[in-house]
Amino acid sequence: MNLIDTLAVESDRRILLVVLDGLGGIPRDKKTELEAAWVPNLNRLAAKSSLGCLVPIDVGVTPGSGPAHLALFGYDPVEYRVGRGVLEALGIGLDIGPDDLCARANFAILDSEGNVKDRRAGRIPTESCAELCERLQKDISRIEDAEVMIRPGKEHRFVVVFRDEGLGDGLTDSDPLHNGRAPLGIEPLRPEAGKSARVANRFIERSAAILAGEKRANYVLLRGLAKKPVIPTLQERFKLKPACVAAYPMYRGLAKLVGMDVLETENTWDSEVAAVRKHFEDYDFFHLHFKETDMAGEDGDFDAKVELIEKFDEEVVPQLTDMGFDVLCITSDHSTPAVLEGHSWHSVPVLVYSRYVRPQARVEEFGERTCARGDLGCLRAQQLMGLLLAHALRLKKFGA
Amino acid sequence: MNLIDTLAVESDRRILLVVLDGLGGIPRDKKTELEAAWVPNLNRLAAKSSLGCLVPIDVGVTPGSGPAHLALFGYDPVEYRVGRGVLEALGIGLDIGPDDLCARANFAILDSEGNVKDRRAGRIPTESCAELCERLQKDISRIEDAEVMIRPGKEHRFVVVFRDEGLGDGLTDSDPLHNGRAPLGIEPLRPEAGKSARVANRFIERSAAILAGEKRANYVLLRGLAKKPVIPTLQERFKLKPACVAAYPMYRGLAKLVGMDVLETENTWDSEVAAVRKHFEDYDFFHLHFKETDMAGEDGDFDAKVELIEKFDEEVVPQLTDMGFDVLCITSDHSTPAVLEGHSWHSVPVLVYSRYVRPQARVEEFGERTCARGDLGCLRAQQLMGLLLAHALRLKKFGA
Repeated sequence: MNLIDTLAVESDRRILLVVLDGLGGIPRDKKTELEAAWVPNLNRLAAKSSLGCLVPIDVGVTPGSGPAHLALFGYDPVEYRVGRGVLEALGIGLDIGPDDLCARANFAILDSEGNVKDRRAGRIPTESCAELCERLQKDISRIEDAEVMIRPGKEHRFVVVFRDEGLGDGLTDSDPLHNGRAPLGIEPLRPEAGKSARVANRFIERSAAILAGEKRANYVLLRGLAKKPVIPTLQERFKLKPACVAAYPMYRGLAKLVGMDVLETENTWDSEVAAVRKHFEDYDFFHLHFKETDMAGEDGDFDAKVELIEKFDEEVVPQLTDMGFDVLCITSDHSTPAVLEGHSWHSVPVLVYSRYVRPQARVEEFGERTCARGDLGCLRAQQLMGLLLAHALRLKKFGA
Repeated sequence: MNLIDTLAVESDRRILLVVLDGLGGIPRDKKTELEAAWVPNLNRLAAKSSLGCLVPIDVGVTPGSGPAHLALFGYDPVEYRVGRGVLEALGIGLDIGPDDLCARANFAILDSEGNVKDRRAGRIPTESCAELCERLQKDISRIEDAEVMIRPGKEHRFVVVFRDEGLGDGLTDSDPLHNGRAPLGIEPLRPEAGKSARVANRFIERSAAILAGEKRANYVLLRGLAKKPVIPTLQERFKLKPACVAAYPMYRGLAKLVGMDVLETENTWDSEVAAVRKHFEDYDFFHLHFKETDMAGEDGDFDAKVELIEKFDEEVVPQLTDMGFDVLCITSDHSTPAVLEGHSWHSVPVLVYSRYVRPQARVEEFGERTCARGDLGCLRAQQLMGLLLAHALRLKKFGA
């Protein structure tokens, strides 16, 4: 058991963890997105906060969203792995239980010799995907005693969940990953996955039979078959009553994995903030997630990311500082520099405000480089939760 | 397996790791050697680089050259130990194979009662050492079925290599470490070392017989008997094609241990840089080592060290920045402060230049204390390789 877990006590002090997804950047014309943004409210807050930087996973490691968030929630992201199938299922909003084996699936096209001609079935439109999923679901609701759920994603992508308590994970993929090769049989990597392999292979056979003669796609490929990891909850570990406010399904799903209640919200920042305000009394830990900064970074749109940060500063920050949290933390899960058009390994700035901080003497700016010189130094993201609990006076003394 | 190893991918992006041996210092008149040096080129490069400091092994630990370099190459220096015998053998330029058991040896003088009168045989001249080694080698070419190689070092020091596939390591020393004591029998610490102990003890007996009556030295002492550790190579771990340019044999030997090709060079800095330039297209990772800064530190010659750093800045840096590496890192294996006349535990400054850094806004100096406030924070030397690989875009994303 981690040290922090052994020290956590109950309390009515409240923590707000705000995650601006992909906030960290690298410079274009000498300034990062955050440094280029006009953020008077954040700067004012920074002047009375502890500042530092967080390394999401480890030095040099570019994280996916799953491990990056688990680290922020205080979990070792290398120990607790969330499989691709589970992330996909969470991403389309499925509730995943302990008996669910989840798979990423593609509609694909096989040639007459049984080799994969197109792994993505020409990226069929999302509507076709929904239609084909419905056809499969109509005919396949159960294989052996496993319930089968088939849900469309975008274009050729969909998700299959096999639900049965006899299904272990630890399976190979059927997707050969390159066109021109034959699809692979799904093999169990350990005895507990024997039934799972049988069920998954049978699903592929039956799907192929149903799709025979279908022009758009005549085959399905499965990969990333996984069950959700067994993770001790935030309640168990830190004696928190935690809630998540996030507009995007995957983040809502990740939050559920660690025991958070997921609050109702529409997909606007105002609605998200209102959800926190509405439930302020009901929880003592809130994870408030804003996705758009990451999307602007992924698009390589530096200016759009700057504008989003400015919007956050103007419209959101004053509301957050007003709500009366004992601890307010503003940070990110990882960097998504517009220059790189994707996630990166760079550290992210972190700001922790409470009555018990040592504010910076001369820093009056919230940015990657001011934070790197902050009083917190450079921490692993996984260490953040301990710090937030401490500032909420929710950790007892270690030793006498 | 380390996380970084699982993420490494092949690429044609190139990394240059420059090691100024013993660069780190402590102040004389308020400035370290590096801070006292006039280094306009390094300062200009620092202004557009990521800066930080590296702790070679662990806080407070003064490293030898072996572990310090292994850490820079991404290896846990506490896990991978290179025995003294192996380092000595590498230091005199021997190629060490997997069947080689290497020992540091001293010529010594025993008194009439068989106690060690002088462990160093009065520090006999290097020429005498060579002469005595030749006498031993002439008579002793084989013991049991082990081939025996005897090579002179400086003064009373020499190296013995026993070559045979049956020789395990894990042995005690024969050197009692104090004059006036009897030499010790070499004992195996594990069953696999039984033959090794027999062969080594027999070597000592036969040497004593050959040296009987010799005034300069009548005995040999062995210690640090070791085989080279089994280390996964940089190719295997990081998918690199690595080369080393170093003028001193030990560094060339260390580089071979981790799978680097060792390039031809003369013992001048110009020749070393020319070797990198010549082979630029042939490798994607270069370790470029300059020894002299460490020697000046060991000599306690502050001014000489300053001059060497200035020479590096003036003659070498412009050539390095010109070559077109995707990632350029300038750092050191450990500190060798002139004030201490030896290696020390202090952290070393590190500079990483690539297109993807967050340069310091206001730092325009490459020095221990500016680097300690750098955006990278303080890293373990072992973490550096992950960062260099990341900046070369040679690591895939962790998780989804």
